[in-house]
Amino acid sequence: MQLIEKVTEMQEESISLRKKGEKIGLVATMGYLHDGHLSLMRKAREACTMVITSIFVNPLQFGPNEDLDRYPRDLKRDFELAKKLDIDYIFNPDPGEMYDRDFNTSVSVKSINKIMCGKYRPIHFDGVCTAVLKLLNIIQPHVSYFGEKDYQQLVIIKKMVRDLNVPVDIVGCPVVREKDGLAMSSRNKYLSPVERKDATVLYMCLKSAAESIKNGQKNLEKIKEQIKETFFRTPSIEDVDYFRGLEPVKSRIEYFISQQQN
Amino acid sequence: MQLIEKVTEMQEESISLRKKGEKIGLVATMGYLHDGHLSLMRKAREACTMVITSIFVNPLQFGPNEDLDRYPRDLKRDFELAKKLDIDYIFNPDPGEMYDRDFNTSVSVKSINKIMCGKYRPIHFDGVCTAVLKLLNIIQPHVSYFGEKDYQQLVIIKKMVRDLNVPVDIVGCPVVREKDGLAMSSRNKYLSPVERKDATVLYMCLKSAAESIKNGQKNLEKIKEQIKETFFRTPSIEDVDYFRGLEPVKSRIEYFISQQQN
Repeated sequence: MQLIEKVTEMQEESISLRKKGEKIGLVATMGYLHDGHLSLMRKAREACTMVITSIFVNPLQFGPNEDLDRYPRDLKRDFELAKKLDIDYIFNPDPGEMYDRDFNTSVSVKSINKIMCGKYRPIHFDGVCTAVLKLLNIIQPHVSYFGEKDYQQLVIIKKMVRDLNVPVDIVGCPVVREKDGLAMSSRNKYLSPVERKDATVLYMCLKSAAESIKNGQKNLEKIKEQIKETFFRTPSIEDVDYFRGLEPVKSRIEYFISQQQN
Repeated sequence: MQLIEKVTEMQEESISLRKKGEKIGLVATMGYLHDGHLSLMRKAREACTMVITSIFVNPLQFGPNEDLDRYPRDLKRDFELAKKLDIDYIFNPDPGEMYDRDFNTSVSVKSINKIMCGKYRPIHFDGVCTAVLKLLNIIQPHVSYFGEKDYQQLVIIKKMVRDLNVPVDIVGCPVVREKDGLAMSSRNKYLSPVERKDATVLYMCLKSAAESIKNGQKNLEKIKEQIKETFFRTPSIEDVDYFRGLEPVKSRIEYFISQQQN
């Protein structure tokens, strides 16, 4: 496994890999790897001859009052995990390597970037798009894997790639969950033991919403009310930003049902 | 010479040309070719093994009250000129081929896109960036040539390419002028005979500003006053949007001087 920290070096290496006919798979991460990331890396390892994992905590996608500074990091452990999975390259650039002091370009998938998560994190998805497009240009993968946990992000990246004709295949992969149903996420580390236990309500609510729909409930508002009730009975939950399942972002509920059916 | 109208076909062809080791040069145009375009095409022909000229009147870069509908077009003549210059491919997509009905992505080089021309054409440069990035992704050139006539555009495209790590070399080429000094432009067709004659005042003013600077005049405001006077003595000129030469867009005056010195 090779560690690359410089943009130019990574891009030259990738161009040369492409010339040699290698099929490049990219798993873009912010590090502090968990089984969700590892599932993407395994998928890439199966489908591609060269697998590159990028580890980059992208400052552009954090709002001014968000957790950029305390975002969990453990590079040593990440490298060990990647090595075990037989990853070929880790790309781990500094923020200054990715963004010049006079960096000034923004990539934006309009409308979808302002609803749901985007409503509460107004610069988030533009920051994601800009960084992901840079990574795609630097690493030039044939396929790039993203988790369905961040479903809105996946939809937005797919849209960006289609709109801008980026020659890459974006593959979404199923959510990986803890035994009690909580979706794996580096940020789960922030939770106190009580919060961690209470967080399972998210998955329980998704399951119960899916159940209601399967049982013929067609009134989404009623389902929302049920779910809000359950949420607010949970001490750690202070507020609900959104719970919805409308196009253009495919409903997490529908998604859950399709998972159940498979 | 091969004419391609479909995005997928062009992209597949380009990827296959790259695999064969061809060096691809792109000249992106809006058609109605003049000697300025042809000078870019000749430069590409000298430096590359495959030259692709795109002809696409990009709706995204026209404001609502601008000249999209009456922008001059003459595809038959364009094809003949390209053939004479031994161009390998013409890429001539429909607007609907470039932009899906639900197209929704925007690429923006901030700050520089709002000054000078950008002040009077607020959506112009974002439209240019978005289209040029699409063309770079579809055609995948090693080198892409742009005229220095649209100097702000050239600076912005270079910045976009650097900021987003697009693996292409952007080459700026000197302005090509009519015998009386007017920069060649497809839009010169809009000028009445009197306006056409009066338009030479632009070049005369640039020359006289450069002359003043060479003679030691360091007060840019004085030079601007001189020039405004000359402009307003010219009947066809109703107003001056801007006349400036400040960073980050390299001064046209400085540029003119450097041209004179070469």
